[in-house]
Amino acid sequence: MPNPTAAMLVIGDEILSGRTREGNLHHLAGELCRIGIDLREARIVPDDRAAIIAAVNALRGAHDHLFTSGGIGPTHDDITAEAVATAFGLPLAVREDARAILAAHYASRGQELNEARLRMARIPEGATLIDNPVSAAPGFTLGNVHVLAGVPNIFQAMVASVLATITGGTPLLTQTLRVDRGEGEIAAPLAALAAEYPDLSFGSYPFVQNGAHGTNLVVRGCDGARVDAAMLRLAALFPRDEG
Amino acid sequence: MPNPTAAMLVIGDEILSGRTREGNLHHLAGELCRIGIDLREARIVPDDRAAIIAAVNALRGAHDHLFTSGGIGPTHDDITAEAVATAFGLPLAVREDARAILAAHYASRGQELNEARLRMARIPEGATLIDNPVSAAPGFTLGNVHVLAGVPNIFQAMVASVLATITGGTPLLTQTLRVDRGEGEIAAPLAALAAEYPDLSFGSYPFVQNGAHGTNLVVRGCDGARVDAAMLRLAALFPRDEG
Repeated sequence: MPNPTAAMLVIGDEILSGRTREGNLHHLAGELCRIGIDLREARIVPDDRAAIIAAVNALRGAHDHLFTSGGIGPTHDDITAEAVATAFGLPLAVREDARAILAAHYASRGQELNEARLRMARIPEGATLIDNPVSAAPGFTLGNVHVLAGVPNIFQAMVASVLATITGGTPLLTQTLRVDRGEGEIAAPLAALAAEYPDLSFGSYPFVQNGAHGTNLVVRGCDGARVDAAMLRLAALFPRDEG
Repeated sequence: MPNPTAAMLVIGDEILSGRTREGNLHHLAGELCRIGIDLREARIVPDDRAAIIAAVNALRGAHDHLFTSGGIGPTHDDITAEAVATAFGLPLAVREDARAILAAHYASRGQELNEARLRMARIPEGATLIDNPVSAAPGFTLGNVHVLAGVPNIFQAMVASVLATITGGTPLLTQTLRVDRGEGEIAAPLAALAAEYPDLSFGSYPFVQNGAHGTNLVVRGCDGARVDAAMLRLAALFPRDEG
């Protein structure tokens, strides 16, 4: 059975304007690979209702899971929950369990659960809350869409909560061989080897170190024995230079 | 006249598998903002012909410019040039000027312009070459699509070459006010102010420092006087705590 597939949607003007460097994709990618879910696509859109709705509907239709990050805070530019509800054609309203979580959190800190903060208790009908151990305001799962915060430590905590509830597939195994030659010298034999192992993915990533060209060759696959066999062949093709 | 719009397409299995952290979007975003081109969307797709073609055609149709990164090296997984040619319905072939650039580069280093390296001289019909001062192999512009290398220092050099040839719009001005309060406390007055300045974009970015909540308020716009006026109003709404 093929692995489940996933997409990620990053929401936020601050990424596209260059103000903030996106940092959640790399974390999610690694976690999904570990449990055998194939991340197939990511998109980054601004805080724009129509753009979010269009991307949510395109990606949730094309993949088994969609993870969103960003836009679920208390301010006017936090419109992800509304946009996701609209994408599903479902109502959005303050929900009692979410309100109770926020009320307890702010009460324990002597702060007011004001109208802005209460926005974070608005949850689309039928969604399941995602625990936020960092700052209380929950994410939610609606159908196959997991709506997570954009702040990295909260995003990571929410990913852990969600992935505990998801059935993965065969984890992808990755091995790397460092070769002291430039990509151009090894491309032809590498392509020939890749053709012999069509079930594996072969990547080639050039670097320059101390003025010398080198390449990291990466073999990925779900069958450990096949990955090992391919690595042995690669190591024989490209032996380390004698030092 | 509204600013020109742009999208970015990042191509590479290594980003979606979590092996490599994407780093070019942040650079491109900042450079485009500086010359008044609005980056509206980014997508990340694997080294998959169909996925690249679909994304290229969707994004080049929706925006004034599309910038791609990755997949133009010498190995079998470098399929961006082919996919872009196919997206335009144009032939791809080794071009003499590109071959001459590569021949000179490798000759000067005493290296062979072998078949794999020659792949990097395959350019879609009618494209304009983009200079690569780092490692010679050129990018290209075809219609409104700018095809750039994924290696960060080469990507940045190619962005500089391309942007020198593009007419931008009104550069976006950005000002930031740091407020020593959490987002929830300032959301309501911030939303009211934002409603008075519909031509500006107001962002709110919470942080925690030494255990205390704070928020960076960011005002963006193309009219400096309007941005200044909004910043004065913000500073009056949220004066710094007396130390």
